[in-house]
Amino acid sequence: MITIKEVAKEAGVSITTVSRVMNNRGYISAETRGKVEGAMKKLNYQPNQLARSFHSKKTFYIGLLIPDVTIPFFTEMTGRIETRLHKQGYKLFLCNAKGRGTDEVQYLNMLFQNKVDGIIIGTHMLKTEDYRAIELPVVALDVTLSDSIPIVSSDHAKGGRLATEEFVRNQCKCVIQLVGDVNIKTPSFIRNNVFSQILKENNIRCINYSMKNSELSRERYYSIAKKIFEEYPQIDGVFSTDLVVANVMKYLLDIGKKIPEDVKIVGYDGGDVAKLMYPSMTYVEQPFDLIADKIVDILLRKINGEKISSSIVLPEIKLVRGMTT
Amino acid sequence: MITIKEVAKEAGVSITTVSRVMNNRGYISAETRGKVEGAMKKLNYQPNQLARSFHSKKTFYIGLLIPDVTIPFFTEMTGRIETRLHKQGYKLFLCNAKGRGTDEVQYLNMLFQNKVDGIIIGTHMLKTEDYRAIELPVVALDVTLSDSIPIVSSDHAKGGRLATEEFVRNQCKCVIQLVGDVNIKTPSFIRNNVFSQILKENNIRCINYSMKNSELSRERYYSIAKKIFEEYPQIDGVFSTDLVVANVMKYLLDIGKKIPEDVKIVGYDGGDVAKLMYPSMTYVEQPFDLIADKIVDILLRKINGEKISSSIVLPEIKLVRGMTT
Repeated sequence: MITIKEVAKEAGVSITTVSRVMNNRGYISAETRGKVEGAMKKLNYQPNQLARSFHSKKTFYIGLLIPDVTIPFFTEMTGRIETRLHKQGYKLFLCNAKGRGTDEVQYLNMLFQNKVDGIIIGTHMLKTEDYRAIELPVVALDVTLSDSIPIVSSDHAKGGRLATEEFVRNQCKCVIQLVGDVNIKTPSFIRNNVFSQILKENNIRCINYSMKNSELSRERYYSIAKKIFEEYPQIDGVFSTDLVVANVMKYLLDIGKKIPEDVKIVGYDGGDVAKLMYPSMTYVEQPFDLIADKIVDILLRKINGEKISSSIVLPEIKLVRGMTT
Repeated sequence: MITIKEVAKEAGVSITTVSRVMNNRGYISAETRGKVEGAMKKLNYQPNQLARSFHSKKTFYIGLLIPDVTIPFFTEMTGRIETRLHKQGYKLFLCNAKGRGTDEVQYLNMLFQNKVDGIIIGTHMLKTEDYRAIELPVVALDVTLSDSIPIVSSDHAKGGRLATEEFVRNQCKCVIQLVGDVNIKTPSFIRNNVFSQILKENNIRCINYSMKNSELSRERYYSIAKKIFEEYPQIDGVFSTDLVVANVMKYLLDIGKKIPEDVKIVGYDGGDVAKLMYPSMTYVEQPFDLIADKIVDILLRKINGEKISSSIVLPEIKLVRGMTT
């Protein structure tokens, strides 16, 4: 097996220089880098990452702990986060906690055992003190974990306001918003409060329907739509995340309701599903690319020793008006 | 730091027994396992997976190399594969090769460097001999890599036949099928051949439109729909994967065409998108759960030393008839 010593000899540089090139550390001229990389290629040198990280104490692994990669928001974020980490030489462990605390603990233990350099967390089934006890760099993706862990999220207050204004503009009388498990602390609940508040100020009835954890599956949304319209036939406006309102739209069209004449619809997120619906959906679009940029940037800065605990709220959130309002 | 020796002492068993429990190897009675796990919990023992795998030569890492986790088929498969691997104690490295050969090589090198125990590959931009040269257990997800690498896929011949019969039954005159990059070898092309063949036998014109690699992005499908209908206004049937035909449906409805009166539509895959469309889409549903079961099963058997090179074709593929045919 080729060693780093042989690479250094072939390139005519010191072992430290080869190590610097490999670890992307310190100043290396383009010429020196070219020599070292040429030597590596010529000798077909394969650094043993496992042995290397065993000695360097850095593994270049990042854990991504989310409820489920098949949830559209997390599909969009996972793809983007992985691409950005890969460009920086990091590898991603994907962990789907499935909204179960036991799985979350198991995954966190796995990540500790594998000595990841940092963790991005987008789920929250444990207690605040459990998250505070994590001694690794952690950044939260749109969830509130503890005071010391920075959160990256969209400006949900603005997003909530943009959505509500659509229902006010259309003179709706009774609007329902379907929200996730209220026991999970996430900044996105700000939008739900803003939403209720603005409707109230405009004397529009607001029904808040909190979906239970067991209902948070793609197969259940259609039957939830059925349930709410049987209970509240007077609803003339619906607000929730893309996939939920897409199912509501499908249910309403199936039973012969007209959109937007009978019911106005606004989605939240602006992923693929929102863009594909017919009639074209009015939705609030989250800045997925920027969220991914920021969360990776903060995590890598924390890994490099910066102390960051303040959160980032991205104001680049906008309304895309379709034919459902 | 707590060592395995202290755990053994606390549990009143040998170090070998603790190791067996940790590695799930050999026969261990429920009582002994309980003792060991109780001692680990009491002492808050955290096995150092990195050190452990450095000595055992097994890492419990699996690489999943796919084009992009945001492509619906791969979203569905990634979620399911990760869940199954996690249950067996394996961790997943997610690699999005983005259809670029350079990224694929880089990711494969990364996986070798990290000494993964096995790789699931669902992309194909390298030469057959490159894949044949991989000395690790590899299973292919719906792509043809080399003779020695088993493929797990649906019965695409049956899927293609089920789809074609919908257009024949509806007496279509001119049907287009939109297919992916024909340079990528995948068993799914069997369905495209079956499709052309059956249409020909029934004297129905079949237009084969092969999307270039650069067109294989979600943003491009709508403009492809526009392009093909401007070039071939006589088209009265469209067949492609869910997301492509969903965009075609959206385009047709936007320009005022009636579905299914003017154009019949059949999707392939049966993911979320297919289930959400209105009018409800007729689609061919792939058995995602079974594909995930089989691919994980074969990979783990290969990791445990079994020689498996024969491929698996899953016949559990079915037509779900909606309102688009």
